[in-house]
Amino acid sequence: MITGKNYIGNTLSAKGSKEYRTFNPQLNLENEKTYTEATEEEINEAVKLASNAYKVFSKISGQKKAAFLNAIADEILALDDVLVQMYCSETGLPEGRARGERGRTVGQLRSFADLVEEGSWVEATIDTALPERKPIPKPDLRKLLVPLGPVVVFGASNFPLAYSTAGGDTAAAFAAGCPVIVKSHPMHAGTGELVASAIIKAAKRTGMPNGVFSNLNSSGIEVGQQLVVHAGVKAVGFTGSIRGGRALYDLAAQREEPIPVFAEMGSINPVVILPEALKNRGESIAKTYAGSITLGTGQFCTNPGLLLGIKGEALTYFIEVLSNEILTIEPSCMLHPNIIGAYEANKQKAISQDGLTVLADYGSDVRTNYARQAITTVEGETFLKNTTLHQEVFGPFSMVVQCKDTKQLEAIISKLEGQLTGTLIADNGEAADNQNIVDALQNRVGRIIYNGVPTGVEVCPAMVHGGPYPSSTDSRFTAVGIHSIKRWVRPFSYQDWPNGLLPDELKNENPLGISRLVNNVQTIDKI
Amino acid sequence: MITGKNYIGNTLSAKGSKEYRTFNPQLNLENEKTYTEATEEEINEAVKLASNAYKVFSKISGQKKAAFLNAIADEILALDDVLVQMYCSETGLPEGRARGERGRTVGQLRSFADLVEEGSWVEATIDTALPERKPIPKPDLRKLLVPLGPVVVFGASNFPLAYSTAGGDTAAAFAAGCPVIVKSHPMHAGTGELVASAIIKAAKRTGMPNGVFSNLNSSGIEVGQQLVVHAGVKAVGFTGSIRGGRALYDLAAQREEPIPVFAEMGSINPVVILPEALKNRGESIAKTYAGSITLGTGQFCTNPGLLLGIKGEALTYFIEVLSNEILTIEPSCMLHPNIIGAYEANKQKAISQDGLTVLADYGSDVRTNYARQAITTVEGETFLKNTTLHQEVFGPFSMVVQCKDTKQLEAIISKLEGQLTGTLIADNGEAADNQNIVDALQNRVGRIIYNGVPTGVEVCPAMVHGGPYPSSTDSRFTAVGIHSIKRWVRPFSYQDWPNGLLPDELKNENPLGISRLVNNVQTIDKI
Repeated sequence: MITGKNYIGNTLSAKGSKEYRTFNPQLNLENEKTYTEATEEEINEAVKLASNAYKVFSKISGQKKAAFLNAIADEILALDDVLVQMYCSETGLPEGRARGERGRTVGQLRSFADLVEEGSWVEATIDTALPERKPIPKPDLRKLLVPLGPVVVFGASNFPLAYSTAGGDTAAAFAAGCPVIVKSHPMHAGTGELVASAIIKAAKRTGMPNGVFSNLNSSGIEVGQQLVVHAGVKAVGFTGSIRGGRALYDLAAQREEPIPVFAEMGSINPVVILPEALKNRGESIAKTYAGSITLGTGQFCTNPGLLLGIKGEALTYFIEVLSNEILTIEPSCMLHPNIIGAYEANKQKAISQDGLTVLADYGSDVRTNYARQAITTVEGETFLKNTTLHQEVFGPFSMVVQCKDTKQLEAIISKLEGQLTGTLIADNGEAADNQNIVDALQNRVGRIIYNGVPTGVEVCPAMVHGGPYPSSTDSRFTAVGIHSIKRWVRPFSYQDWPNGLLPDELKNENPLGISRLVNNVQTIDKI
Repeated sequence: MITGKNYIGNTLSAKGSKEYRTFNPQLNLENEKTYTEATEEEINEAVKLASNAYKVFSKISGQKKAAFLNAIADEILALDDVLVQMYCSETGLPEGRARGERGRTVGQLRSFADLVEEGSWVEATIDTALPERKPIPKPDLRKLLVPLGPVVVFGASNFPLAYSTAGGDTAAAFAAGCPVIVKSHPMHAGTGELVASAIIKAAKRTGMPNGVFSNLNSSGIEVGQQLVVHAGVKAVGFTGSIRGGRALYDLAAQREEPIPVFAEMGSINPVVILPEALKNRGESIAKTYAGSITLGTGQFCTNPGLLLGIKGEALTYFIEVLSNEILTIEPSCMLHPNIIGAYEANKQKAISQDGLTVLADYGSDVRTNYARQAITTVEGETFLKNTTLHQEVFGPFSMVVQCKDTKQLEAIISKLEGQLTGTLIADNGEAADNQNIVDALQNRVGRIIYNGVPTGVEVCPAMVHGGPYPSSTDSRFTAVGIHSIKRWVRPFSYQDWPNGLLPDELKNENPLGISRLVNNVQTIDKI
């Protein structure tokens, strides 16, 4: 049952007067339910509850946190078709995608449950005392990772489940022991409320403190801004545009007490196609990429927006196949009129640049809110000079840059802004023979792919989803995979602390049986 | 042989016209040698060389980096008495301290050498492919930590060796694979040049690329500012005042591409003395703390500037002993007339606050540049209301806060800014009985000490030197110990990359024999 209210901790609340609705882009009309934006009073209450909850939640056992995370996963699955239908009605995405993203979300929650149940993730490090050491005795020191405090998570427009209410940021923060306040994304407030209700149910069922989670409705930027500058908030997770993420980063950096903002932002995900691969299998690469560019209507942060090749016959043929192929793909619906509005505007801005040629632009005869995919091309020299062409066009759009030689290719890569991914398409010894290009690409990205496509972000420990600015605001962390928990923790050290008062992770007996670095040796042994 | 010049990579250079000298506070006169401040041209050249050096240095083996780090340690030791005498002449600190700090510096370098030679620190994480997985195959993903790029390190006034030219920040950055540009501290430019010459010798001897290290002289703030805003600089390490660190943090956050600044700044290091301990051994605690407060003329960031107790007979007696004891300690020399000037000014500012009582202030009859240690006291209520009293007085100064009860004590701790350390002095069951106080203290600090003193920062893996703002700008990292290497690295992921082209750390064969997380199991096995 959707109420349109905020969850301020366990309490449904709608004190404000600002209301809004979500939009069904497939039907091109507003959904019926109205949502009430959170007031300043409600925001303050949510932070106060989170700060209180932190005192308890930051110290509960890994086992209890795991039970909470698994219960969230169970409650999300229990929402079943209600959730799937709500998802589809607020995004225009197909049911299969909804179910797939739900699976990913549930999988993420369970992988963090496993992580904290096992417990070694706290990086327990122990250096025992040397009381006889000269000239001064060595104290006993024991370190572990502890949660930062209340975390604010911003829902992402393009992943209502996996990167929103109970998505990766929230799952990682809960696993770390941080209460979470979600700034719900206005485009999918209903999906957000449903998932929030699942989290609240799970929190109650597993005995979590009131305030461990709140869900705040918002139609504009004010709620998010108020949260980020609130003294009780200790860290921020965001997935979205460069402009949005940077604004939050700036706000957080200007606080009296600056706080970390982990924002995962835009990316054009350069794909380098080396000559031999282009010659040997240009047609098949073109077909694969037509699919990758249009996957999910291009609404992925890993969408390949930039294809780089060396000018010549093979590239000309590749472009021809890619252009033809992409026009055979049925257009699909974007998330919201605002998203397709931005897509068309950004596409036009790119197309209007000097030297850009449009190779394919799907006819105007498409349904409302359905995106017309496009392929463009430009000379390397032109691309190098005009950084407007380096900007992301969020949607099913890509640009083929025709470089005059590998030197220019390398120069272009080096001049790119930071990216989530880079891809190398190569045959035989080409990768080894072009080490400079590979090095340049590695230096600009968080993940490098060999003979594949950047779309598809596997959730696994070895994944890096993040990268040099502006693909993220802090390249020292990943947003996906179990190690993303490190965004929300800090190391904390006990000196000469009585064994009985230490957290279990650091006790001599190692009651949790976790792996620890003891006197510089990794071990599960007792002391 | 001191030249007074900058090291721009391997080249001694002095293109500027701005000259300055260091000062001998014991003799109260300027040292003879003049140093030439780096020009903008020299700064740009140093960054350019560092960026080029990064291409090579970021990929050299752990063994070679270890050889470089050990060679730096050897070359520092080879400077022998020349270095010790220079150190003393620029700081007023005794020879024993110089030798002790040199030992710490050399020890840090060697511990990072051991870390990178062994190699497991890169947190290699491998998830092998599942080509048969439905609905889509799982790719092969392999992750490791890679260096960020050129790092700027600011020398600290109070640790010319251990936190300056070849100190912890530099050692950690080199270990990570980052070239380093040091902004030399103007108070010990000679010590800085000597250590820089040792690094350059070591770099040449072990075949490191030119530009892996530069040392820039500076008398004011301009050189540092220019470095922090330079597009080629990718991270900053700083140890010093809150004002200085925050200014650099702000500059870095306002860049088009923001970069991480790890600043380790001020702290008053609260010490909580619980009633029973105070009653049982107030005299001995007072004597211990008289020593800790005056150690190194109070010029440690872990100096105990705040002692908190419950008002009553035992605290009155403690205060009496502490005040008497501290006056029996011979005053000692501060680092520089500016430092003692700031000390006296900050002490006067504190003393002039309403409600503060001076219990001990060493007589005026002391040598020039020698600090008069002082003990003051204030009621809990007064302290709680006046945050001026929460500010650090850098030097041999401490304030005893007389709380009316444990509730007020807890309120005071909760209201403190972030701190490097917190100390609990307790007897028998007192710690367990005062869990609220312990929790409040833990929440404000990076390291908590039981029945000890905060001065003395052991260099070991379990140490956390850092903490909530403003003790540091990023509590997610420590500045001391091998794990401080994590400040200068980012995770990087390879997807479906050919085995032969992977870095050794990620190859199937595990040629380095390091510990890796393979399909979620930590192992040294091959794949």
